Amino acid sequence: MSEKLIKSLAGTRDILPWQWEKWHALHDAARRQFSIYGYGELATPIIEEAALFIKGTGESTEIVEKQMYTIDAAGEEDSGNAISLRPEGTPPAVRAYLESDLHKKQKFQKFWYSGPMFRREKPQKGRLRQFHQIGVEAIGGDSPLLDAETILLADAIYRDAGLKGYRTCINNIGCEECRPRYRENLRTYLRDRSDELCPDCVRRLDRNVLRILDCKNAPCKETVADMPSITGLLCNGCKDHYRTLKTVLDAQGLDYQEDPHLVRGLDYYTQTVYEIKHEELGARDTICGGGRYDGLVAQMGGPELSCVGFAMGVEATLIAMEAETEPDEATSLNPDVYVVCFDEPARIKCFEQLTMLRGAGLSADMDYEGRSAKAQMRSADRTGADFCMLIGGLEIENCEVTLKDMRSGQQWKAAWDKGADAILDALA
Amino acid sequence: MSEKLIKSLAGTRDILPWQWEKWHALHDAARRQFSIYGYGELATPIIEEAALFIKGTGESTEIVEKQMYTIDAAGEEDSGNAISLRPEGTPPAVRAYLESDLHKKQKFQKFWYSGPMFRREKPQKGRLRQFHQIGVEAIGGDSPLLDAETILLADAIYRDAGLKGYRTCINNIGCEECRPRYRENLRTYLRDRSDELCPDCVRRLDRNVLRILDCKNAPCKETVADMPSITGLLCNGCKDHYRTLKTVLDAQGLDYQEDPHLVRGLDYYTQTVYEIKHEELGARDTICGGGRYDGLVAQMGGPELSCVGFAMGVEATLIAMEAETEPDEATSLNPDVYVVCFDEPARIKCFEQLTMLRGAGLSADMDYEGRSAKAQMRSADRTGADFCMLIGGLEIENCEVTLKDMRSGQQWKAAWDKGADAILDALA
Repeated sequence: MSEKLIKSLAGTRDILPWQWEKWHALHDAARRQFSIYGYGELATPIIEEAALFIKGTGESTEIVEKQMYTIDAAGEEDSGNAISLRPEGTPPAVRAYLESDLHKKQKFQKFWYSGPMFRREKPQKGRLRQFHQIGVEAIGGDSPLLDAETILLADAIYRDAGLKGYRTCINNIGCEECRPRYRENLRTYLRDRSDELCPDCVRRLDRNVLRILDCKNAPCKETVADMPSITGLLCNGCKDHYRTLKTVLDAQGLDYQEDPHLVRGLDYYTQTVYEIKHEELGARDTICGGGRYDGLVAQMGGPELSCVGFAMGVEATLIAMEAETEPDEATSLNPDVYVVCFDEPARIKCFEQLTMLRGAGLSADMDYEGRSAKAQMRSADRTGADFCMLIGGLEIENCEVTLKDMRSGQQWKAAWDKGADAILDALA
Repeated sequence: MSEKLIKSLAGTRDILPWQWEKWHALHDAARRQFSIYGYGELATPIIEEAALFIKGTGESTEIVEKQMYTIDAAGEEDSGNAISLRPEGTPPAVRAYLESDLHKKQKFQKFWYSGPMFRREKPQKGRLRQFHQIGVEAIGGDSPLLDAETILLADAIYRDAGLKGYRTCINNIGCEECRPRYRENLRTYLRDRSDELCPDCVRRLDRNVLRILDCKNAPCKETVADMPSITGLLCNGCKDHYRTLKTVLDAQGLDYQEDPHLVRGLDYYTQTVYEIKHEELGARDTICGGGRYDGLVAQMGGPELSCVGFAMGVEATLIAMEAETEPDEATSLNPDVYVVCFDEPARIKCFEQLTMLRGAGLSADMDYEGRSAKAQMRSADRTGADFCMLIGGLEIENCEVTLKDMRSGQQWKAAWDKGADAILDALA
């Protein structure tokens, strides 16, 4: 190797062929439950105008302030506006909803999406810069039953995927009527303790005091631990909403906890917020977060619409799944048949059989490196093939194939054009 | 609506819930055939070091020269090197193969991938800046049988997906031994006609004369139409390789055409190149392109390895599929059951039934907008529900539910806790 190899970027990773088992288990479970719960699949682009997130996610959020991958698009034929890699899925889903005029046809819509998100976080263990989310957005409904539906949906996905050691935390952070009062209370409380806060949080005192509740610095965490909770300040509408949500979750027997200090790291949440946490994850233990965002659609230029949604962190969830069960086995492809060539001139005839086997729907493979019959038998073993088909000069002369059951070692012959049938019979 | 709506970027698009039918048909077909053909799933990140494509795809290619989305990463904690959105899948696959040390364990590996790619092309009809590819890379095999395998695999995917009006074109563009002679011939031929070429192609005369064969400008296309083909200049190795490939494809009955002018727009191809074209696509009619790239791995700093692969354009293929068949129907979600609430106080009890239905694996939905019973029945109709479950004060008093078959109009009652069973019976 003459040159230095180029590596993958810090905070990104490949998924290799034997690393998919739990990934697919989670995504398959989600897809099943989305169908049961009536959510429609939505894909939005990876790239959007940066303004979408500045307006939607919020200018003063950590995500927009520090973590966006932004491409300067000056000189572009089109808008010339800056382009961002999406850091989260909610503003694009709302944009798609508004842009497609869905709200004119039918106001209430339920979507799900899955895919990569990008945040330029400090690269460290467990924090990826390209990570993946599975999320839902229910747009146009203000019923607390809808909040309950999304919480139960997240729970159903995790149960379907076999996950166990998680707990659901809920809170109500008030609406535009009651939250200003709380914000003022909190500001007064924290201003007296501002020497205990980090510089970012001191700045947040004026700009966005609620975000201090979400700061990950230990001194800030301690300072807010005894802060007044919003619960007593909620307006009657929010109190009713929260009460109904809890009644419904109780009736469903969902094991949840109320956490009056729970806020989410995004500006647009109102009323219900929730997180699902897993015991195996340490300090950053949230594997799913969601809540209501009743102001966002209007803020993005659309009509007044109440919404609720969640996003699951795929990588965080997979860590939890892997901690609970055996790690993915280094599974090989396990073809039904491996075709072994005994004499070099037979190789093209082997390929013919290979294509016949595949045409019959059997998974089948052969050697393309010109290796010896012995090495080919080793490959058959290593890939976990159920059967071998052995072809040499003799087989071609007699217009037949030799078959070998790799478990029993038993060998038998079949006519040249009956090889696939013989394997299908043996598998049945 | 007070503010201007932010739109999606030119050259990107959403996929809405009723636009997935052919997308999934193609991807499901591909997944089935990858399993039959023994290709393992590989995911690489969307973002990579720009150098990966400069080195891998080739500095003088149009993609790298003009079309890469690149993020200046100066000031980053890590490398500080420029970051690109991947414009194609082959260099990342090779990087993943080398970085994971797969080649040390087992040299020969077959991968497939699918996902978004990004090229900053001029936005125009049918050319997306975020588009999608399904591709394979077989690394470490030099047999022409392997070239045949990938061509037959692409064909198997299209057949499995139900596509018909496509044709496969093949060529051999020589190896590092015989191509220089051809390049010289071509340069001499085209230099005499350089006044007929576009300025880009005049520049290509010295830098990369083969790329002129791929120019989309009409005058350049005409100029190269009568150029000498490489076929007569191939070395014996390339001739043999090409002959074997054709023999094998003939034996399989694959209907292909030889096109001595076929080159691919990437620098790394050697020997076999192929394209699958579809009659419905007009000037840019390639829906799948591939070939052998025997020099790339070493060029990227790895060992000398022979490789072959293809990439299907998902959007181009979907255009072809849609031209051949009915466009996707605007399918609704078709839940098994829609729960209709007849009296407002019953709404929470409706939600209870909804959860019981879903718990039984039935797809079920209800209204979250507080609409009238009549409007809810309209929703049940519109979503294409098979059954309605009607719940009002009377049902709750009698501890039962009313069920309605939406096709026959027939109504019947079931005990409160037998609603799901009754629907399951009726569906069976």
